[in-house]
Amino acid sequence: MAQTESAPLLGRILLTGAAGGLGRELRPRLRRRCALLRVSDIAAMQAAGPGEEVVEAPLENRAAVDALLQGMDAVVHLGGISTEQPFDAILQANIVGAYNLYEAARRHGVKRIVFASSNHVTGFYRQDEVIDATMPVRPDGYYGLSKAFGENLARFYFDRYGIETACLRIGSSFPEPKDRRMLATWLSYDDLERLVVACLTAPVVGHSIVYGMSDNTTTWWDNTPARHLGFRPRDSSESFRAAKEAAQPTLDRSDPAVIYQGGAFVRMGPFE
Amino acid sequence: MAQTESAPLLGRILLTGAAGGLGRELRPRLRRRCALLRVSDIAAMQAAGPGEEVVEAPLENRAAVDALLQGMDAVVHLGGISTEQPFDAILQANIVGAYNLYEAARRHGVKRIVFASSNHVTGFYRQDEVIDATMPVRPDGYYGLSKAFGENLARFYFDRYGIETACLRIGSSFPEPKDRRMLATWLSYDDLERLVVACLTAPVVGHSIVYGMSDNTTTWWDNTPARHLGFRPRDSSESFRAAKEAAQPTLDRSDPAVIYQGGAFVRMGPFE
Amino acid sequence: MAQTESAPLLGRILLTGAAGGLGRELRPRLRRRCALLRVSDIAAMQAAGPGEEVVEAPLENRAAVDALLQGMDAVVHLGGISTEQPFDAILQANIVGAYNLYEAARRHGVKRIVFASSNHVTGFYRQDEVIDATMPVRPDGYYGLSKAFGENLARFYFDRYGIETACLRIGSSFPEPKDRRMLATWLSYDDLERLVVACLTAPVVGHSIVYGMSDNTTTWWDNTPARHLGFRPRDSSESFRAAKEAAQPTLDRSDPAVIYQGGAFVRMGPFE
Amino acid sequence: MAQTESAPLLGRILLTGAAGGLGRELRPRLRRRCALLRVSDIAAMQAAGPGEEVVEAPLENRAAVDALLQGMDAVVHLGGISTEQPFDAILQANIVGAYNLYEAARRHGVKRIVFASSNHVTGFYRQDEVIDATMPVRPDGYYGLSKAFGENLARFYFDRYGIETACLRIGSSFPEPKDRRMLATWLSYDDLERLVVACLTAPVVGHSIVYGMSDNTTTWWDNTPARHLGFRPRDSSESFRAAKEAAQPTLDRSDPAVIYQGGAFVRMGPFE
Amino acid sequence: MAQTESAPLLGRILLTGAAGGLGRELRPRLRRRCALLRVSDIAAMQAAGPGEEVVEAPLENRAAVDALLQGMDAVVHLGGISTEQPFDAILQANIVGAYNLYEAARRHGVKRIVFASSNHVTGFYRQDEVIDATMPVRPDGYYGLSKAFGENLARFYFDRYGIETACLRIGSSFPEPKDRRMLATWLSYDDLERLVVACLTAPVVGHSIVYGMSDNTTTWWDNTPARHLGFRPRDSSESFRAAKEAAQPTLDRSDPAVIYQGGAFVRMGPFE
Amino acid sequence: MAQTESAPLLGRILLTGAAGGLGRELRPRLRRRCALLRVSDIAAMQAAGPGEEVVEAPLENRAAVDALLQGMDAVVHLGGISTEQPFDAILQANIVGAYNLYEAARRHGVKRIVFASSNHVTGFYRQDEVIDATMPVRPDGYYGLSKAFGENLARFYFDRYGIETACLRIGSSFPEPKDRRMLATWLSYDDLERLVVACLTAPVVGHSIVYGMSDNTTTWWDNTPARHLGFRPRDSSESFRAAKEAAQPTLDRSDPAVIYQGGAFVRMGPFE
Repeated sequence: MAQTESAPLLGRILLTGAAGGLGRELRPRLRRRCALLRVSDIAAMQAAGPGEEVVEAPLENRAAVDALLQGMDAVVHLGGISTEQPFDAILQANIVGAYNLYEAARRHGVKRIVFASSNHVTGFYRQDEVIDATMPVRPDGYYGLSKAFGENLARFYFDRYGIETACLRIGSSFPEPKDRRMLATWLSYDDLERLVVACLTAPVVGHSIVYGMSDNTTTWWDNTPARHLGFRPRDSSESFRAAKEAAQPTLDRSDPAVIYQGGAFVRMGPFE
Repeated sequence: MAQTESAPLLGRILLTGAAGGLGRELRPRLRRRCALLRVSDIAAMQAAGPGEEVVEAPLENRAAVDALLQGMDAVVHLGGISTEQPFDAILQANIVGAYNLYEAARRHGVKRIVFASSNHVTGFYRQDEVIDATMPVRPDGYYGLSKAFGENLARFYFDRYGIETACLRIGSSFPEPKDRRMLATWLSYDDLERLVVACLTAPVVGHSIVYGMSDNTTTWWDNTPARHLGFRPRDSSESFRAAKEAAQPTLDRSDPAVIYQGGAFVRMGPFE
Repeated sequence: MAQTESAPLLGRILLTGAAGGLGRELRPRLRRRCALLRVSDIAAMQAAGPGEEVVEAPLENRAAVDALLQGMDAVVHLGGISTEQPFDAILQANIVGAYNLYEAARRHGVKRIVFASSNHVTGFYRQDEVIDATMPVRPDGYYGLSKAFGENLARFYFDRYGIETACLRIGSSFPEPKDRRMLATWLSYDDLERLVVACLTAPVVGHSIVYGMSDNTTTWWDNTPARHLGFRPRDSSESFRAAKEAAQPTLDRSDPAVIYQGGAFVRMGPFE
Repeated sequence: MAQTESAPLLGRILLTGAAGGLGRELRPRLRRRCALLRVSDIAAMQAAGPGEEVVEAPLENRAAVDALLQGMDAVVHLGGISTEQPFDAILQANIVGAYNLYEAARRHGVKRIVFASSNHVTGFYRQDEVIDATMPVRPDGYYGLSKAFGENLARFYFDRYGIETACLRIGSSFPEPKDRRMLATWLSYDDLERLVVACLTAPVVGHSIVYGMSDNTTTWWDNTPARHLGFRPRDSSESFRAAKEAAQPTLDRSDPAVIYQGGAFVRMGPFE
Repeated sequence: MAQTESAPLLGRILLTGAAGGLGRELRPRLRRRCALLRVSDIAAMQAAGPGEEVVEAPLENRAAVDALLQGMDAVVHLGGISTEQPFDAILQANIVGAYNLYEAARRHGVKRIVFASSNHVTGFYRQDEVIDATMPVRPDGYYGLSKAFGENLARFYFDRYGIETACLRIGSSFPEPKDRRMLATWLSYDDLERLVVACLTAPVVGHSIVYGMSDNTTTWWDNTPARHLGFRPRDSSESFRAAKEAAQPTLDRSDPAVIYQGGAFVRMGPFE
Repeated sequence: MAQTESAPLLGRILLTGAAGGLGRELRPRLRRRCALLRVSDIAAMQAAGPGEEVVEAPLENRAAVDALLQGMDAVVHLGGISTEQPFDAILQANIVGAYNLYEAARRHGVKRIVFASSNHVTGFYRQDEVIDATMPVRPDGYYGLSKAFGENLARFYFDRYGIETACLRIGSSFPEPKDRRMLATWLSYDDLERLVVACLTAPVVGHSIVYGMSDNTTTWWDNTPARHLGFRPRDSSESFRAAKEAAQPTLDRSDPAVIYQGGAFVRMGPFE
């Protein structure tokens, strides 16, 4: 855990998706910095510790989400589906869910949201292209489409209501890279924490989009347009390179999962 | 009606939204050029003429939409909601509806769609900015968000399944401009026809986005990236200028509807 | 005179530099469209006609300029020095003068200014380059520097006080082109009028920069970023081409005046 | 023939490739404007008329090319191979030939060359892309590669020796478009003449690249960066559209010749 | 003090503004590297040490400035007003003063100037925007306007007379950051020295613009276009972050001083 | 030698130009990583060690080059002329040679080539410009022209036949920088190895262009578009700065070799 400070700076924070992989990792890291941490999910969560509230709430339930936002200063929105799945499931959790969240934020005067978007918003760019967040999206599936919707929704709520969002196009946040593709996309947990904390504390966020990746030697993403956020990763996938290359000495270069940034997502589906 | 030819070139075409303003206008213009024109809406439509089929089908009904696409060569998709409305209505007609349409196209091997998107996808740019379709979207409401979703969905179905779409960010298509804003955004019916026909006949469309406007003297949109479509408007709002300026001699320059390209859409809502 | 209408649309307009070449040309054209036309210069002007006020005022005189702006709705600012001259003269008329004008506009609540800038703001680009108004300035002398200052001043007064300015980087506005260079830079008087009227009537101008040129076949300037102003030239220098080429059949291509867009301005000075 | 003037303006001009399709067309049009027209080819040419010299010279013959340039003011270089062919032939005529020509120009002080490059320099862009001449080249064969070499050679001789070149990326210059692709690429003979004359008479050309096409409704090329040349086409392929579409009502959209701008060139070869 | 070398490399250097905060800091650092250091100001300065000359000279005094430049190889121009003040004061010190300096440089053949410009040249960009020096200026006051004038003046003297200038858009150069804004804008004194020395020693400077900031984690400025200068900061504001955030735990996000890069400068004035 | 691993990862590699400066340096570094290293040159080479084959082959000999490629997995192509020389020599070794190599690769199914291009492809940019590999080339001589040809040839073989190439625009790869210019252009041998290995092991290379330079403080090249290759230099010319500046304390700033990036290459020739 990268940074610790004695006093809470972050006020009252809602963390959605708290039962997921990233949510479980972020929960204790955020708790230390918050006046209050409200955590939410649809799956079972650890019981509330000091300074915590635990609320089960499905994102597609408008009233439940409305209640979640009450009294919050900011939101870290990891909730929803984070893999490629049939459209109907994605629609409810990620599209209706995002709408419910932003409407609740508007009603309760919550002014900043850190939104877990995804690199799959641009997964159909090639692995020999370096892109930045001002370029047109190229989603690689329904999941990526729902995250692009969330980013646009956030843009609208900023332009219309002044609610700030930092959209994190997270690469692959795991204890370590799992394969050669993740040498480019890996985001360590410590860097994830740095990123979320930077987005919560930056004086002005407006509507920002940043790729969530560590300081990897290989990368497809240029975060220059997001330097105002104050995120500077300190970890790198490089120490895992030799092992990952040894484990996958050859790659089928005609496989779309090798060619495109989205990896295996780009060839999932159709779902019937 | 701008161009007529003796023989049908366009094969079997589905026109959705055929009962709406643009649908009623396009129906006879397309019928002349098609081997078959299937028209669809949820509202009452004129009875089928020669070379026509008339089918009532709500876009949110997956099976109905699937049946609509059967045997078609291409689609002109005007269906759905075309004004700003509460999210739940937009969600069904425009988001679920677009998904149903593209899935049906995929299943039935339909390879080209002309999709009526909207200038409201970028309605939060200012009226003193000139933009083109490669710039980030700034939707001005749920309607604009749903159209941005449709454009991204089309991008995905092209990257993944090779289905081509021309997204038409239509300005204001009416018999004539209604106010000073429409001096910039007007698209005459003849130019609308030229645009749709160009998109249906161009040898390669890929995933293209074009603003639908006549050759107006004032404009906020640069269609240079879409010149490959072969659309060149021949009408202009200029002959209406004096009358529109006389009717609105003064404008409140602090009104968001005057400042932003989306006009009155940018200050609609919230809906509760 | 390009456009006439029966009723005044433009309210109360101040025209500075009314005794100069462009001022004398614009005065009767504006008078027809204004509720009141106040004209000003330091040189002798024609007596006031109906609907006119004539005021002598040096731009470097703060009080005089303040009085000029009183009660005005908008300004067409042609005043100041419009040729390359020693710095001290330019400083007073164009730099101090522009400051005086904008301060007076701020104090009197005038909300729109049409500012006669100049192509000499970018005169050190080459004649084989096509530029637009978003590119860095390259002034070709003190005159060009003073106009760049005026444009930046206007930008500041818009960002800080909301005063809108359309900066016209005028090419060469004369009855006809005088030499081969003006085949590219010529702005007919009718097109000048169209441009000024467009800038006065456009609903939103913000801070805009537009090159003032007719629809010439040869051009160095791309006005795409200014299409929102609604200026479309109708004249062209092309009918003068044969005569101008015959009069200057050869050019010395090592002469900076031939190489650079600013023409002879780029080799004036030093002045001692 | 588009423009005629009584007196020769163009001095002493060398036209290479005079026996080819474009050469035969340009020869009488240039003769009228020149003090002297020297024409050259390796194939039989019409006998010299008044004001003409006819010289047979293979471009790969250094001494012969050197003699060709003697006493010339400018060159219109159409010579060499203009179709896709095996590399060795292209190498001699187009690569060695271009080198011989520029070296001769340097030795004889010739200061301007109009170089017939080709759209095949960028033939591997897609037909749903609009490009301009500042984008990276994507040649579609040895012919396109040789033309890219010629453009770079011209760039070097300008940077190093001040020899100006206008590179014309000619589309398809024929009496009329031959197929649907040429609706986009067609350059009428009159527009070809306008283009060549503009490049010979423009005061400053530097190193310029322009696509040679008429004012076609469908186009893949944006000539904005070349407006300083003063070329404005007056013809259009549009009147041929109906006939060309009727002749090719369907296209195989999986055919690289349909997908890419270079048409059939992109699938020629390999040559063994 | 970052870099020391035994022998003077920098020849005869004029340092203006030597009595100011940055001048007092740079004076001993430059003295060590120069054959001669002439220092100048209108305020009292420390007596001349070995290798130094001390000259009092107001920048608006043309003759005095002319004498200052005599015999110099290069200038580090920190002189003039460096805070927001009424226009008349800025006009004399910064606009007339800059003109006097460049004219004197031209007359005396001085070929390089390091010009202390300011981040206030672009102060009206937002703090959630990352900009670079090729983007249009947005000055946040008269001070910023005068620095933009100085940059343009430098551009002119390079294009016209070949005098090179490195324009330093200095952020906030103090012993340490004073508030949260300066976490982004801070330039340590050691990095300031590195920057000035790099600009004085780079073989070719032409007309360059570089933002003067340390290697801060949060930044609004991308110095990619200035990497040829060889400036690489080694300090960072990061070690001050916790203290600065603790001192200003909350910010009023509706305050223009929080929203815009220029900070409090953007809401100074009007001055009457 | 930067990275060592126990097992060969790189398969069967051909290294051309193995007798040259970079070839001799790379040979042992590559041998350690390859299943087989075939080395080739026209000059005498060290005898074959274990895991090596040594083949003399002139690049202009088509059959010899064809034989070289047989059975190879990838090529590191350093062969040919690497200095400015008369055109005829360059033509054979670098233009014909490159064609022979790519044709042989196509015939033998070799799918990746690391091509030693050169900074002289863009040598006519100025030393006060920072460029990247998407900008138009500006070769500084016949050598640079031949490398630009090679890059375009590689682009074609990727677009047409799917053969991937990483084009390395190598700066100055020597044991240490030789002069002040090389403070910007230096590439250490260890960084050269890192670069070549990255290009051989990256999962997807497509057609990439990267400048080969160490992590120098001064640089003219922005490698952002090539970050997907996974090259991150670890060395820097900075430790040589003081010595190089002391050795060349003054530079003639009117010398093209000082002004342009290509250094002395830009004023070589003409060769007769």
